[in-house]
Amino acid sequence: MITTSLRSRLLVNSDRLSLSIDELADIGKLADGGVRRIAYSPEDLIARQRLQAWMADAGMSVRIDAAGNIIGTYAGHDPTLPALATGSHIDTVPTGGRYDGAFGVLAGLEVVRVLHERQVRLRHPLELIAFTDEEGSMIGSKAMAGHVINDPGYYRRPDGEDIRTCLKRVGGDWDKIASAARSRRDIAAFLELHVEQGPILESMNSQIGVVKGIVGQRRYQITIIGQANHAGTTPMYMRQDALVAAAKIILLVNEAASVPGQQVATVGMVNVFPNAANVVPGRVSMSLDIRDLSAFHLDSLVEKIMQQTKEIAAQTKTHIEIQPVLRTEPAPAADHIQRAIVQACKSLGLIYTHLPSRASHDAQEIATFTDMGMIFVPSKAGLSHAEAEYTSPEQCTQGANVLLNTLLELDEYY
Amino acid sequence: MITTSLRSRLLVNSDRLSLSIDELADIGKLADGGVRRIAYSPEDLIARQRLQAWMADAGMSVRIDAAGNIIGTYAGHDPTLPALATGSHIDTVPTGGRYDGAFGVLAGLEVVRVLHERQVRLRHPLELIAFTDEEGSMIGSKAMAGHVINDPGYYRRPDGEDIRTCLKRVGGDWDKIASAARSRRDIAAFLELHVEQGPILESMNSQIGVVKGIVGQRRYQITIIGQANHAGTTPMYMRQDALVAAAKIILLVNEAASVPGQQVATVGMVNVFPNAANVVPGRVSMSLDIRDLSAFHLDSLVEKIMQQTKEIAAQTKTHIEIQPVLRTEPAPAADHIQRAIVQACKSLGLIYTHLPSRASHDAQEIATFTDMGMIFVPSKAGLSHAEAEYTSPEQCTQGANVLLNTLLELDEYY
Repeated sequence: MITTSLRSRLLVNSDRLSLSIDELADIGKLADGGVRRIAYSPEDLIARQRLQAWMADAGMSVRIDAAGNIIGTYAGHDPTLPALATGSHIDTVPTGGRYDGAFGVLAGLEVVRVLHERQVRLRHPLELIAFTDEEGSMIGSKAMAGHVINDPGYYRRPDGEDIRTCLKRVGGDWDKIASAARSRRDIAAFLELHVEQGPILESMNSQIGVVKGIVGQRRYQITIIGQANHAGTTPMYMRQDALVAAAKIILLVNEAASVPGQQVATVGMVNVFPNAANVVPGRVSMSLDIRDLSAFHLDSLVEKIMQQTKEIAAQTKTHIEIQPVLRTEPAPAADHIQRAIVQACKSLGLIYTHLPSRASHDAQEIATFTDMGMIFVPSKAGLSHAEAEYTSPEQCTQGANVLLNTLLELDEYY
Repeated sequence: MITTSLRSRLLVNSDRLSLSIDELADIGKLADGGVRRIAYSPEDLIARQRLQAWMADAGMSVRIDAAGNIIGTYAGHDPTLPALATGSHIDTVPTGGRYDGAFGVLAGLEVVRVLHERQVRLRHPLELIAFTDEEGSMIGSKAMAGHVINDPGYYRRPDGEDIRTCLKRVGGDWDKIASAARSRRDIAAFLELHVEQGPILESMNSQIGVVKGIVGQRRYQITIIGQANHAGTTPMYMRQDALVAAAKIILLVNEAASVPGQQVATVGMVNVFPNAANVVPGRVSMSLDIRDLSAFHLDSLVEKIMQQTKEIAAQTKTHIEIQPVLRTEPAPAADHIQRAIVQACKSLGLIYTHLPSRASHDAQEIATFTDMGMIFVPSKAGLSHAEAEYTSPEQCTQGANVLLNTLLELDEYY
């Protein structure tokens, strides 16, 4: 048991955290301050080696599972207890920033460094995990959740490389990937610290985001078949204009989502055929992306849009097909973990806001088998997946201290 | 003066007209029944030679003006009178039909053949004109109207060929193109017979269209600047979605034109950036095409759309730019020519409908300097600029007889 007086003196080393972020960002550094460290690339391999060395130096035992996940364990007082786990990923998109993923891993490392130098141990083992390829297949967290599809072709890389070769390169083993699966019996809770990748915290002048859950997503391909015709000689009343039907759907989607609640809905892609100024559009294909924390609300929204789309088809004398292309379920954060994060914010005097995560994270996979929580720190201008991604050193320190304090809270809870 | 009893016996030879249409359609014939006879192409040159021979055989004197227009003159009783003129074009779009243009020229030829075999002359000289390159630059009719821009680069062909070379090949002369200009003093009236290229006559079971005029056209390029953003993490109220603004404009345009009247308005082309399912659209560029018979009404409609577009920009927090790209003025048909066409229909017992031409024709250029009228025959399913373009031999004969009778009416009018 860690005493209250000790807890109040346990804070991360801000300079050391900043230095780690700088050092990791040097691996795959881009000209404008960003990072290119694609999973399985030479840069990723260097970063993975560096992280393993840092983990060992911080008193952790390090292993690589069959999915290539790097798992550092800082032993607790009671080896019979399941682990408390934290972590994120160190791979990036092709033109990424310094914080997305890396910050969560390095803040977890800093937490262990503090505990190690103070010679403090929790009751539970503390695991720090760097998941494999979050920005692509999410194969690392999917493997832990037992969700990997038994077909290596499905995971072939965009550059054509075989997933088996990739995993081997990072110390994993496709043939044994089922062995990477974990359960509630050996991970009691998983806590991911991440930059928000959105504008909410900054716009509310909030220091910490207490994530309510990761939204579920439904994505559809909508095809509208009308009749292409001469834009001069076809009177308005004889038209079957696929673009007019598309416009009605775009506004319907926008209005249906612009009501109180956490839902977002977007038509981001529209392709018109034949797409000429003097031809009434005969066909439009477009995307529909809907996200919300509640599966029930998500399905109601989809149902409402589908229903009204039928009316639009009748009004515009068009035929409309809707094809599902993606479906992920919402992953709610455990209530007691949200409360523990709030408690940590209060004890550190930080302003917090409850909000959903509308982007995907490894935590959504882990949430399928054990308790999950997420902590957000602000992203400047909401920017992410861009070189200009920025979270200040002070904000990083605040996030890492909340992570540390929340883990201490959870160590008492379980 | 042609007696009433002679007029009632003057009818075109239906078989001869059909044969001419077949023979011309053989030049540039496509596999599915259509025609490829692009202006200045080898096929166009062969067809031009064939037409000139036919004109000469029908008792006409033939000349080529500096714009390459083929002008056959069937002398009248009074050489001091200005001509009555008819005609159209024999070039086609790359995958065209058998009737667009060619029918008007060959029906005019048939009219002269009938007069010639009956040894009948009008009071006025009768000109039959095949205009150069109607489907491209309309340089033939523009030259007659004195509207050619003094820059050969402007008329460079899509394949890069110099207009001066092209005109030389068909017997024209760029350097003397101003000499092709005509005036009311030598053409009293121009009457063009054409297939409708739209569905109105067929849908009304009408045999003849009495064209009220050729619509004017305004075309704009609309650019909407919003802010591209993550479709997951950007809440609805913080979006500047360029596609939502575009959808509002598409519906506004459709609604503004879908009121009683002859106007049509179309958004036919839309390009979205970055056009990805998971990104709120940051920019949309789109076309706007508006056509109407009344310049005043056209400008009011444009004004209304512009005004409401400003409101849409404010509502959606976007910036909207509207750039004019094309402007042609309406060309009304002369009232007394419309009356003459109606009189011809009545005496032939044909069902007629007054309607606008919403496609462009050489007649719109000729209307800028003399009286103009147009006669339409039905197009099956409104199809045009397609191999499946079709007007039946009976409908062709009806149109040619209306042309003949209207010319006889006009011969008395002027």
